[in-house]
Amino acid sequence: MPKIVDARLRRSEFVDATWRVIRKEGLPAATLRRVAAEARCTTGALTHYFSNREALLVQALRAAHFAAGARMVAAAGRVRGDLKRLETLVLEALPLDAVRMNEWKTHLTFWGEACDNEKLRSENARRFAEWGQLLEEYMAPIVPGEKARRREAMLLMALIDGLALRLVLQARRGSRIQTDATEVADAVRSHLRAMQAHY
Amino acid sequence: MPKIVDARLRRSEFVDATWRVIRKEGLPAATLRRVAAEARCTTGALTHYFSNREALLVQALRAAHFAAGARMVAAAGRVRGDLKRLETLVLEALPLDAVRMNEWKTHLTFWGEACDNEKLRSENARRFAEWGQLLEEYMAPIVPGEKARRREAMLLMALIDGLALRLVLQARRGSRIQTDATEVADAVRSHLRAMQAHY
Repeated sequence: MPKIVDARLRRSEFVDATWRVIRKEGLPAATLRRVAAEARCTTGALTHYFSNREALLVQALRAAHFAAGARMVAAAGRVRGDLKRLETLVLEALPLDAVRMNEWKTHLTFWGEACDNEKLRSENARRFAEWGQLLEEYMAPIVPGEKARRREAMLLMALIDGLALRLVLQARRGSRIQTDATEVADAVRSHLRAMQAHY
Repeated sequence: MPKIVDARLRRSEFVDATWRVIRKEGLPAATLRRVAAEARCTTGALTHYFSNREALLVQALRAAHFAAGARMVAAAGRVRGDLKRLETLVLEALPLDAVRMNEWKTHLTFWGEACDNEKLRSENARRFAEWGQLLEEYMAPIVPGEKARRREAMLLMALIDGLALRLVLQARRGSRIQTDATEVADAVRSHLRAMQAHY
């Protein structure tokens, strides 16, 4: 195997190991030593690829972001109609099943840690910006004008984060289905319809 | 001083000490031992009022919630007009100054911890419900119908949380003014105007 592919593969194995540790034991547990153990290698082998814990966490956050983005875009690609496509993208972003619920719980822990960590914060800011641009693209056929689109994307992003937070905090332990998942989905549809009617 | 007042005063002193520790050293640092030291008393004197750390944190969260609520209602009481009152309430809820920025950072840390803590979670759920009811009250003159009001309150709450998150995560360390505070306030006004126009 060429060396560059091998390095990429190693890095992605370490990122997977990081996520396994985060999911099983929480974010604070994801130290270099613990992740190395999870990946069945020495800490030295891990630090060859990631010089410190922060670099590893940034990479894990980035990988999760792109995986979620790919999933949303794929879901939106399967439906017809501009509004329906945007709606599908947004609903796919929300923690409406167990897998996405776990993703959001991790986001929440990251955010708590990012408050006082400049690196995680700027990584987060980049992800926010990209996510905003993606929403603006899907809004282009519905909301005319760059300024209005920027504002509506900001509102929609905030709405998604706030609704996700509500679902995560209200989900009962061990239960897969959230009490008000249907209500949340209805609220999203209502917001998007009102937005379309406004323009 | 009558004994009951004395007990209330002691409890509120402990809550204040808890907040000082959280603000200076973060939520994980707020242990019974550390809070007792901050309040210049023994751990035993503290556990006389709060039997464990969780009980103390629930009380701290509750106190912050009511203080913020009182501040929002007071601000809304100073303006005229139904929409303006609702707008004032919402803008007062957002982290648009340094004090509220600190409050929201703490919320964020609490949420991270609440994901896996049933007591903090149910306390949070109660606060969410109360906050939703308050918004519904202020919406009553603008949004007719209980079901629509419930939905709009859920959307507005999510919007506030999401925008707050954005402001908290984007605020630069040491800077008091957020890069897009004006943009956020404009977006809130735009959302409320669209809501009013819709009904």
